[in-house]
Amino acid sequence: MEKTDVLIIGGSAAGIVAAVTAKSRYVDKKVTVIRKEEKVLVPCGIPYVFGSLESSNKNVIPDAMLVNAGVELKIGEVVFIDKENKICKTSNDIEISFEKLILATGSLPVISKQLKGITLDNVFTVQKDKEYLDKMTSKLKDYKKIVIVGGGFIGVEIADELQKRGKDVTIIEILPNILGLAFDKEIASRAEDLLKSRNVKIKTSIAVKEILGDKKTTGVLLDNGEEFEADVVILSMGYKPNTDLAQKAEIEVNKLGSIKVDEYMRTYDTDIFAVGDCAEKRDFITRKLSKVMLASTACSEARVAGMNLYNLSSVKTFSGTISIFATAFGQTGFATAGLTETLALEEGFDIVCGSFEGMDRHPGSLSNTQKQFVKLIVSRESGILLGGEVVGGLGTGELINFIGLAIQNKMTINSIIGIQIGTHPLLTASPPAYPFIKAAEDIIKKINNK
Amino acid sequence: MEKTDVLIIGGSAAGIVAAVTAKSRYVDKKVTVIRKEEKVLVPCGIPYVFGSLESSNKNVIPDAMLVNAGVELKIGEVVFIDKENKICKTSNDIEISFEKLILATGSLPVISKQLKGITLDNVFTVQKDKEYLDKMTSKLKDYKKIVIVGGGFIGVEIADELQKRGKDVTIIEILPNILGLAFDKEIASRAEDLLKSRNVKIKTSIAVKEILGDKKTTGVLLDNGEEFEADVVILSMGYKPNTDLAQKAEIEVNKLGSIKVDEYMRTYDTDIFAVGDCAEKRDFITRKLSKVMLASTACSEARVAGMNLYNLSSVKTFSGTISIFATAFGQTGFATAGLTETLALEEGFDIVCGSFEGMDRHPGSLSNTQKQFVKLIVSRESGILLGGEVVGGLGTGELINFIGLAIQNKMTINSIIGIQIGTHPLLTASPPAYPFIKAAEDIIKKINNK
Repeated sequence: MEKTDVLIIGGSAAGIVAAVTAKSRYVDKKVTVIRKEEKVLVPCGIPYVFGSLESSNKNVIPDAMLVNAGVELKIGEVVFIDKENKICKTSNDIEISFEKLILATGSLPVISKQLKGITLDNVFTVQKDKEYLDKMTSKLKDYKKIVIVGGGFIGVEIADELQKRGKDVTIIEILPNILGLAFDKEIASRAEDLLKSRNVKIKTSIAVKEILGDKKTTGVLLDNGEEFEADVVILSMGYKPNTDLAQKAEIEVNKLGSIKVDEYMRTYDTDIFAVGDCAEKRDFITRKLSKVMLASTACSEARVAGMNLYNLSSVKTFSGTISIFATAFGQTGFATAGLTETLALEEGFDIVCGSFEGMDRHPGSLSNTQKQFVKLIVSRESGILLGGEVVGGLGTGELINFIGLAIQNKMTINSIIGIQIGTHPLLTASPPAYPFIKAAEDIIKKINNK
Repeated sequence: MEKTDVLIIGGSAAGIVAAVTAKSRYVDKKVTVIRKEEKVLVPCGIPYVFGSLESSNKNVIPDAMLVNAGVELKIGEVVFIDKENKICKTSNDIEISFEKLILATGSLPVISKQLKGITLDNVFTVQKDKEYLDKMTSKLKDYKKIVIVGGGFIGVEIADELQKRGKDVTIIEILPNILGLAFDKEIASRAEDLLKSRNVKIKTSIAVKEILGDKKTTGVLLDNGEEFEADVVILSMGYKPNTDLAQKAEIEVNKLGSIKVDEYMRTYDTDIFAVGDCAEKRDFITRKLSKVMLASTACSEARVAGMNLYNLSSVKTFSGTISIFATAFGQTGFATAGLTETLALEEGFDIVCGSFEGMDRHPGSLSNTQKQFVKLIVSRESGILLGGEVVGGLGTGELINFIGLAIQNKMTINSIIGIQIGTHPLLTASPPAYPFIKAAEDIIKKINNK
């Protein structure tokens, strides 16, 4: 029997960060990551394997990250957890004992089994599996017409990458807008318009009834009877927590299938932790169970788990998912943090929204200057910032983190209005027209004039 | 006699924001900006008039910002303030009465009058004056060899812009490093190396003794006897508050010559406010008087003044200058917020510093990916973040605002480690290697291993 102190199952973002943090915090402990894949892909990089990156080989997380930190790495699939005796068994009958176990088993693509035609040739899901993706990208080379079912982040990013390769791409989305859970309508529409101008076709408010074809797919049939021809169909309908292993070990999961955890990321068995896509999430603001899966959130949870393994730190806990998303099509970034206006209203918040559109550099006469739009959502009663959305240039990714931090600090509109920023012609909006502050001003004006 | 309710003297960033905020907050009041310039330049854009922008015409703040907000605009130079009777007089004998006055008179270039040769032809300062700059840029067209005295932000930005135009540029800096007040040595050195690779010559740790020449300058003589040939000498040795008008009206100034103000930006006469470069500043952390002048800080002060003119708001006050600077040379951004390590040590803080260098996009195999370096400075006793410095790509401007917001919220290293971020391949560093969080981890490790 092999022996380790801290065993982490899963080698993607959450597993790596949990392991590195554990080894850094508890230097004398032996920390081992066990994963079934020979090579692990950068999860958020997967859509870019279809275009900007020429091959999945350019999207591999280097094992050096683990090895240099002094973490042991094992390739193998854990098939059984013996909680009582603190032993994991692999598919090739290796047994490893542990003191502390961290589950970072990730997520799997959702497929609706009722959907006819899902087993046809050239019907793919988006799996975080290098071999599968390599086969898929190599198949795609021979075909032109692609239908993507599902217009969430993964679906639209793959669509944009495939159009770069000259493919004829159509997205079918059941909601009224692509990216419709992450953005309010007016911002999702901007993304739609941009993608359309980049030759991606988009059909919304309609479901796929059937994937057509005999042996190989030939297209999709929609609920309204419309048919779309396709050489390849990509199903991108979300992910579900990968918790079969946990459930077999009677580690409790919630109604969404996620492993139940506390703020230290511990399961009910306090020597077993869960982090990342497989772990239960609560929304930072609504405190409801959340389905949002993000590598960045996973890393935050993994840090919390790694630090609290043997000694609890009451100040290093996980406070709930803020849902900070960013993406880009060409030179235009789209990003969101916290609640959208739609979601806030659905939750019953009395809110005030404000927005502003300026330029992302200044003066606007500089070359490569882009429009920058910021929308903020504030609770009227408390003045607390609930959410923000951004459309802008390539600084959008860091700007949404700025907004995310304001949400995390539960800043009120009165304190936001006094935020000090730095600005620079080549890097940001101008001082008097910084859209984040101007959107806040818009809200204050609405509150005052009520 | 003309009559207004709120009179603002000065039409640059601080004046504009004060006026627009005042009009927005107190809709029924008449708000008037009086300024002496026909056209006002974007202050931070001035260095770019020497290169990237073809003419100062592309760097003018549109008056529409005032006009659209319902603010009256007057061109004229106020030469006297009658505090008692609440009247301002202009150089062409117009009298304007006011209820509330906001001084936003800005700053003027520092010139050491002892320095021999400052009155020679082709010796310039960097004035926020369109006519002066137009003459200067037109003169520069005919000349090749430029010496810039002073390696602060304005000096180095002009140097880089002039080298883009093929000029032979040398910076002379009295401190051991250019940008030496804003950055710690290791980061300032990176900026120096980059500028040198872009053909800017740099001499540090040496003072200019004399500007040489008969009628026209021919070069500079340094303290060590060394001579540098020059067709043009640009003096960029800092700015001083422009407060002659205030002093003549017996509005109290501090020992740095700045108008004394409280947290509402009021002078001792509570109907008279001062904002921007002419107003007293205290450092956010050290609470000492600060010489830092920034358009972004000025706008923050101006918002506070505008909101508190008639009704005080105890939550909308100015909390001291955080000193958030950003700049860029080519595709590389440099930025800083709060205290540097050097300054923190000088102030007697017991500090712990941490740093991390990663990539600003992920995977690193994507094109246009740049190194991203973050250094953080934390107080050991409280764990509170005192400062941060960044070198990276064009996202640097927003990333430093993220760090600035953490400083402003007095976040501790334990809360920073739990910050949730959003990431995206095309926009940010990777989730497990986000440099801000990794630098924080570096600090926690040092504290734990002490």
